[in-house]
Amino acid sequence: MSSSAHLDRLIEALQVMPGIGPRSAARIAYTLLDHRRAGGLELARVLQEALSKITLCPCCRNYSDGGFCALCSNVKRRQSGLLCVVESPADVQAVESSGTFFGTYFVLHGHLSPIDGIGAEELGFPLLTERLASGEVREVILATNPTVEGDVTASYIAAIARRYQIKLSKIASGVPFGGNLDSVDEHTLATSIKQRRAFD
Amino acid sequence: MSSSAHLDRLIEALQVMPGIGPRSAARIAYTLLDHRRAGGLELARVLQEALSKITLCPCCRNYSDGGFCALCSNVKRRQSGLLCVVESPADVQAVESSGTFFGTYFVLHGHLSPIDGIGAEELGFPLLTERLASGEVREVILATNPTVEGDVTASYIAAIARRYQIKLSKIASGVPFGGNLDSVDEHTLATSIKQRRAFD
Repeated sequence: MSSSAHLDRLIEALQVMPGIGPRSAARIAYTLLDHRRAGGLELARVLQEALSKITLCPCCRNYSDGGFCALCSNVKRRQSGLLCVVESPADVQAVESSGTFFGTYFVLHGHLSPIDGIGAEELGFPLLTERLASGEVREVILATNPTVEGDVTASYIAAIARRYQIKLSKIASGVPFGGNLDSVDEHTLATSIKQRRAFD
Repeated sequence: MSSSAHLDRLIEALQVMPGIGPRSAARIAYTLLDHRRAGGLELARVLQEALSKITLCPCCRNYSDGGFCALCSNVKRRQSGLLCVVESPADVQAVESSGTFFGTYFVLHGHLSPIDGIGAEELGFPLLTERLASGEVREVILATNPTVEGDVTASYIAAIARRYQIKLSKIASGVPFGGNLDSVDEHTLATSIKQRRAFD
């Protein structure tokens, strides 16, 4: 039995977040109550606003504040003719952090998975096809995850792009920087040997 | 650069929670947006309500929904004459979970720490003294943390209780169940040997 019904409801509600169980939820509730009431109230306001206002961009399916997202609204990015296809909004953030890509994106929100009922429609292929047909894209960079499902999804997209004679590329797989060969799985190492490049 | 200003603000605001850094905040934001919008909105509502309405119980200083908390409102608990003094609301929850205590509590919200400006006033000693003087309490159970600061705080409370000839006890320290002797620190083991009890 707890001393406050509001507290019980708060600890329960906090567990909607991934990775937050009853113990972490209680710790969060106590910290907010004891030391960070203003910050907690701000979080409540921002959370309410974000969840009611964020929609999917009608051009790339990434999160947007209504209408086109900030990235698709950038004319220079659209004029680049480069389209990077990724599985999730988090992947967009990851590519952006790398600071090497200045085109637009297309977010699939998953990968082909017929067993879960995720097909071409769910991944937005009709919208993607429309974009490829528009003539605006000159190169599609496939950046789905290097998994079996990601690769199958990439092949499917490649087939669409080929219909419109669009150049295709795929981000490189291999040994990550700072890693060591011994700790990399054999499939990754095999790929990085097969796809070795001239050293100059 | 992110695709949505609302999303950026959400990821920032989520980091008010202890143990949540930028990466976990982003993961939480994406999960709420993708799969749990209703739950997230409910969290925003409950959080706003809890942080604006939860106060400290005027009797035990535990969290309450305004006025006396649920535990102090329980007449049977008050009539037991048992008062358990703990450092934090989380400790109340821990004692409650043990299912062995049916008295009332007093929550210090910390321990004596002159260097941080935490003294008798901050820990609510005037209120505690009032409760002990009222004649309602027949036994004080000291359940501060088994640390140097917790022990000092407990001694201080004991001195107050003695003024009113109130019985004093302290929760047992020793080897925890399911542990093994080898992994317990020497101070705990020394205590559990010194405080050994008759075996029957």
